[in-house]
Amino acid sequence: MCEIRMTERTRVKRGRKIASYDREVVNNVIDESWVCNIGVSVEGEAMVQPSSHWRIGNEIYLHGSVKNGLFQTVMKGQTACITLCLLDGLVFSRSAYHHSVNFRSVVIYGKGRLVEDPEEKRAALDALIDKYSPGRSAEARPPNEKEMKVTAVFAFSIDEVSAKVRTGGPNEEPEDLELDVWAGVKPVTSVIGELIPD
Amino acid sequence: MCEIRMTERTRVKRGRKIASYDREVVNNVIDESWVCNIGVSVEGEAMVQPSSHWRIGNEIYLHGSVKNGLFQTVMKGQTACITLCLLDGLVFSRSAYHHSVNFRSVVIYGKGRLVEDPEEKRAALDALIDKYSPGRSAEARPPNEKEMKVTAVFAFSIDEVSAKVRTGGPNEEPEDLELDVWAGVKPVTSVIGELIPD
Repeated sequence: MCEIRMTERTRVKRGRKIASYDREVVNNVIDESWVCNIGVSVEGEAMVQPSSHWRIGNEIYLHGSVKNGLFQTVMKGQTACITLCLLDGLVFSRSAYHHSVNFRSVVIYGKGRLVEDPEEKRAALDALIDKYSPGRSAEARPPNEKEMKVTAVFAFSIDEVSAKVRTGGPNEEPEDLELDVWAGVKPVTSVIGELIPD
Repeated sequence: MCEIRMTERTRVKRGRKIASYDREVVNNVIDESWVCNIGVSVEGEAMVQPSSHWRIGNEIYLHGSVKNGLFQTVMKGQTACITLCLLDGLVFSRSAYHHSVNFRSVVIYGKGRLVEDPEEKRAALDALIDKYSPGRSAEARPPNEKEMKVTAVFAFSIDEVSAKVRTGGPNEEPEDLELDVWAGVKPVTSVIGELIPD
C-alpha cells in the first residue's frame, strides 16, 4: 500500500526513527485494537474519551449516543484527534534511562462524517458486530428503528495520520553493556478468552 | 478511601449507572495500565498522544522529552485531559444493539506540575522504574545529569476525575432472551510474558 502524505501536524517530531506512514501498519493497529481515544477542544481545553472503533476501507468509525457531548462537537465540524496504542512489550535496559515499551501507536486527525443514510449506517454497524465475531451481524437480532435512531455513527478518513512502532530489545549506552544488570524484553499480549455463556 | 468530589466536567452524563468516583477504582486502573492518553488544546483543536504514566499517592506522573510539543502546552498552564482504559471483555448480546465491552476507564482533568526539584524528580523517575519491576531502580544504572536534563516530568493531581466500570454479561431486551443466538462474555486479559534476555 502507498505511503501516507505527511502534514505538519502528523510529522513526527520526537522519535522520528520509529515513525511510520505506512497504511498497512496503521490499518493493522486499528483492526487489532478495541479501544481508541478521541479528543476535541471545548472552550480552549481538550476533552478526551475512550471509545470503541472499527474500520471500513480507509475510514475509522466511532459510534455513541446521539446525546454524547463530545460527538456534538464533532458534529459541529471540528477536527478531532483519534489515538490508538497497542502495547507489545516492557523493555528493561541496564540503565534506568533507557527503559521503554514496545508499542504500535497511531494518531489520526480528521473531521467526523455523520453517517445518515440508513443503508450505509446499517452496513457500518454490521461491520462493528462482525468485528466481534465474523458473520455475527447475520445472527444477532438486527437493530430496530429506535435503536438506530439513538445511535450516532461517525466516519473519519484515515488520511492525516502517523504511526510509531517500537520493536526489539533495549537501547544501551556502550559503557553500560558490561554492567551486571539483567536486561531484555517481557512481551505483552492481549488475550481474548473462551466464551463464558450467558 | 473517600469518594471523589464531582465537577460539572467530570459528572458522567452518558452511562451514569456505570460511573464511579471511588479512589480505589481510579487508582487500580492507573496502576494496572501502562499507557494513558493525554490531550491538550492547540489553536482550538485537540492534540492527543499516548504516553507512559505512573502514580505516586494522589498524583499521576508523565514524562517525556523536554522538547515535546504537547508537554510545552502543559507547561504553559493549560488544563490537560488524561484518559486510561482497561479492556476486560467482549460482550456478546442476542441483539446487535446490546453488544458491548467490559472495561474500566478513567478521565482526569488537571494542570501539570513540572517536577523540578532534583531529588523529587529522581524519586519520581525511580518510581517509574520500580513499576517495571519492584526494586529495579536500585539495580539499574541511575540516570546521569544529561539524561535528567533532557527528561521532563509532570505530576497531575488525581482530583478532578471520574471512572466508568462495566462488568457482567450482556444486557438484553426481554423478548430477545428466547432467540436462538449464542450470547455471553469473552474475557480479555493483558498478559506480561517471561523475560526474553538481551
